[in-house]
Amino acid sequence: MPTYPKTERNRVKRLPKRGHYDHETVYRILDKALICHVGFVDQRQPFVIPTNFARVNDTILLHGSKASRMLKHIATGSPVCVTATIVDGLVLARSVFHHSVNYRSVVLFGKGRLVADKKEKLAALEAITEHIIPGRWREARLPNHKEMNATSVVSIKIESASAKVRIGPPVDDQEDYTLPVWAGILPLQEMALAPVRDELMPEDIPIPYYVTNYSRK
Amino acid sequence: MPTYPKTERNRVKRLPKRGHYDHETVYRILDKALICHVGFVDQRQPFVIPTNFARVNDTILLHGSKASRMLKHIATGSPVCVTATIVDGLVLARSVFHHSVNYRSVVLFGKGRLVADKKEKLAALEAITEHIIPGRWREARLPNHKEMNATSVVSIKIESASAKVRIGPPVDDQEDYTLPVWAGILPLQEMALAPVRDELMPEDIPIPYYVTNYSRK
Repeated sequence: MPTYPKTERNRVKRLPKRGHYDHETVYRILDKALICHVGFVDQRQPFVIPTNFARVNDTILLHGSKASRMLKHIATGSPVCVTATIVDGLVLARSVFHHSVNYRSVVLFGKGRLVADKKEKLAALEAITEHIIPGRWREARLPNHKEMNATSVVSIKIESASAKVRIGPPVDDQEDYTLPVWAGILPLQEMALAPVRDELMPEDIPIPYYVTNYSRK
Repeated sequence: MPTYPKTERNRVKRLPKRGHYDHETVYRILDKALICHVGFVDQRQPFVIPTNFARVNDTILLHGSKASRMLKHIATGSPVCVTATIVDGLVLARSVFHHSVNYRSVVLFGKGRLVADKKEKLAALEAITEHIIPGRWREARLPNHKEMNATSVVSIKIESASAKVRIGPPVDDQEDYTLPVWAGILPLQEMALAPVRDELMPEDIPIPYYVTNYSRK
């Protein structure tokens, strides 16, 4: 199983037992997360921007307006950190100190390049659309020439990454187990509610199966 | 209504109509978000780390292990970016180009300091615990001397911030409204599932109301 080498940059320092470095775990979390948070540095100031993305092989794809400061900056090849986090629940321990969150997160590092090739760019947009909601690319109207020109895509090769995962019940100090405090997990999940059809749509268009069955679980 | 001045750093550049600078909007989003993503720079490398937090007045509070690299770094007073994002739904337009996400996000900037004062530190831990799940601080065992010493808290005064909000249906190009493509919103919401009690807990401890009624909505 391929893994990312542990270095000072990607090593999980706090609670190292929660750290994972294999591509499989990293990819699985990235593919489940709807959005990521992208970190970059401009004149010593860090910026963290939420955005859609896709992973293809060992690469992260981001898209946006040609005018996007973030994409312009990433396209210069300066170092980037991309973090994706899925919260799975609150961990309620008997002591405040041992409260925690069950989660799966990936922190990855790389450098971006602008995707100029038209075919590669279209494939990237397909991957990003299908990451948001699989099945949509085949149905929606595809980007035309003008829209392609107004859109920038950057590709970030993953140089280094780690995943961090907490699962399971609270772990309290031995002497606290007798305290009369409710302890356990409150599971949290991002759920889809009933779809809301656009009022400007003809009545006879049925809801696609990939909307009805949408789940990131 | 107090607002954050618009500067080059916090100005919402893409789709400026989605930008909000008033404290009220910024605070409301921060208070609803369960976690935030903290960006900092170490030797020109950006890092983005997910973490729990609380907002008190115009200040962000973070906590963690005394050994945390992130907290040590923030305590030096170097520039920090804190971003909180709530995803509210997928926006399915007729064209791929106009697909979007309904969301509420805050990007804020500041510099941290270590909270050394014991009373201030305890109040910060209370705020962070109550941010995760209101009502918990009064029931769980409070931190003892050893736990307080093992925990670091940093306080980040918000120097500058902006919120970005997208709501509402897809907006397509006029000529696309006749396409036979389902369009609308798929609302997403982080929901609490049934609480899972710790197996090591006595049977007679009832589930607290704040667990049963938990909602970030």
